[in-house]
Amino acid sequence: MTELNRQILLVSRPEGEASVDNFKLVETPLRPLEDGQVRVRNHYLSLDPYMRGRMSDAKSYAPPQPLNEVMIGGTVGVVIESKHPKFKAGDKVVGGFGWQEFGTSDGTGLKIVDDTHVPLSAYLGAVGMPGVTGWYGLNRVIEAKAGETIVVSAASGAVGGVVGQLAKAAGCRAVGIAGGEDKCRYVVESLGFDACVDYKAGNLYQDLKAATPDGVHGYFENVGGDVLDATLARMNAFGRIAVCGMIAGYDGRPLPIKNPRIILTQRLKLQGFIVSEHLDIWPEALKELGGMVAQKKLHFRESIAVGLENAPDAFLGLLKGRNFGKQLVKLI
Amino acid sequence: MTELNRQILLVSRPEGEASVDNFKLVETPLRPLEDGQVRVRNHYLSLDPYMRGRMSDAKSYAPPQPLNEVMIGGTVGVVIESKHPKFKAGDKVVGGFGWQEFGTSDGTGLKIVDDTHVPLSAYLGAVGMPGVTGWYGLNRVIEAKAGETIVVSAASGAVGGVVGQLAKAAGCRAVGIAGGEDKCRYVVESLGFDACVDYKAGNLYQDLKAATPDGVHGYFENVGGDVLDATLARMNAFGRIAVCGMIAGYDGRPLPIKNPRIILTQRLKLQGFIVSEHLDIWPEALKELGGMVAQKKLHFRESIAVGLENAPDAFLGLLKGRNFGKQLVKLI
Repeated sequence: MTELNRQILLVSRPEGEASVDNFKLVETPLRPLEDGQVRVRNHYLSLDPYMRGRMSDAKSYAPPQPLNEVMIGGTVGVVIESKHPKFKAGDKVVGGFGWQEFGTSDGTGLKIVDDTHVPLSAYLGAVGMPGVTGWYGLNRVIEAKAGETIVVSAASGAVGGVVGQLAKAAGCRAVGIAGGEDKCRYVVESLGFDACVDYKAGNLYQDLKAATPDGVHGYFENVGGDVLDATLARMNAFGRIAVCGMIAGYDGRPLPIKNPRIILTQRLKLQGFIVSEHLDIWPEALKELGGMVAQKKLHFRESIAVGLENAPDAFLGLLKGRNFGKQLVKLI
Repeated sequence: MTELNRQILLVSRPEGEASVDNFKLVETPLRPLEDGQVRVRNHYLSLDPYMRGRMSDAKSYAPPQPLNEVMIGGTVGVVIESKHPKFKAGDKVVGGFGWQEFGTSDGTGLKIVDDTHVPLSAYLGAVGMPGVTGWYGLNRVIEAKAGETIVVSAASGAVGGVVGQLAKAAGCRAVGIAGGEDKCRYVVESLGFDACVDYKAGNLYQDLKAATPDGVHGYFENVGGDVLDATLARMNAFGRIAVCGMIAGYDGRPLPIKNPRIILTQRLKLQGFIVSEHLDIWPEALKELGGMVAQKKLHFRESIAVGLENAPDAFLGLLKGRNFGKQLVKLI
């Protein structure tokens, strides 16, 4: 009997907000493995905000996700069959098989990882793309120095949590911005930030001002909109802003910067970046992040949806901040 | 008989648009010169957009201009009396005596210049602060490379004209944005830009698109508002924006960036800067700019108001783009 591979395709592009109707679950028979191929049973699928950009065909840094193909995405899993000399059954691998239960590959982009000291799922979070994103923005764009105040939005998320913990380790004051009391408590108590501002409490600027008595030297931006405006108004002279994401505008809403004159008056640097364009720093970053996770010096939290069929809803929740920590889909 | 020094004071701060009522002309007797002092008859007063910022007491990079004191500003003139060992009558000097006919100083910030090959007034323009501003933004923020397309707003102005000519000299395509057919014709025909877009013609984005077939690699921003929005939409990946001024918002109007997401999607760098904070590059920049002016390789135009009493009106005109080239006030 031929085994079936459940897959989720993008079947339409959102007009405004994305919806579950943009996706479709299909079952596709697995073909016999060919020479040079390896087959992986995916254990976890990573859901990340960048995927919302790929759903649209607006001009961006990456081509849009093609319609009627399996949604892209990072995965971790276990090799179940191999006709490839570099892989054997049982190998734990990280790759980009997208929203499906099985992946078949010629090995390109597939990397064997060790889950002895680092949980397999962490290779999609703190020791994967999100972690490296935080590392790059903090170290190469913000260039944080000891004694400085570093603010990060979406602080309880996969990227934000890493930014604040690395900032603390570098001797900075780390201030998070997150949505809701629970997330803020977690950011301070579990991740060790110095403070966290709840943007849903309705007093964002005043609360941020109280949390940043020396102003803000560096800001890691994941959100945009009101959160960016409030933080801009707290920036010190020569402040640096790493623009990693603007999730508040991913559904096409206008997301202006209300007072960009502060870029001039405070001589700020704003720099957008995409971590996949800086592959040279990945080995250094992953080594540091993996070491910290293994030594329990870098903490993270996961929101796990169970079952491929729940990926679309979990993804839409991520866009609205319903996740708490790194959003994953458990596939087995 | 004691000679009188005519001076213009700032007597009130603007609410919204600046007006002539914010200024007051007074006559103050000149005191006898003391040992160690030098007295200068100012020939030209420089009017610059940054002065609008100093009229307000909003948080900025520089303290506000104090009320009831002589307005700050760059001046060039001739020493008429000296009890200072480094200066003698007849020396041509550039300094910052502000909006007054005579300046008295202990020599601090006063520099003797040679007007044999460079006109004295140019030390307030192409071979002065505006020229160095253009040089710094192009070379140190944008880091323009041969073959790139460089756009500059307020292209017929003191800073913008230098930016485009230096860009051409560096092998770039130089595209100006200016207000009106006359200014655009001047920018192309006299300054040698490859193209100039008239933002008053009502078709800014389409005209800019036509003038930048390869997109925009570097943008030197003097204006803000709609001009910034239009240029942002033309930026290439890894584009650099030197934020030098946002004159469109100097009267307190809101001046949002409508679509900052492009900072992320095109991985742009925006950097605000103030040239007076980069004194280390002034000698190199002034040498290059002075050499180009002396060899007639760097062209500029001046708008000259005559008489100190006309400085306020000329300044308000500058804020509205009524000047055409470097705005000066001739004092003698």
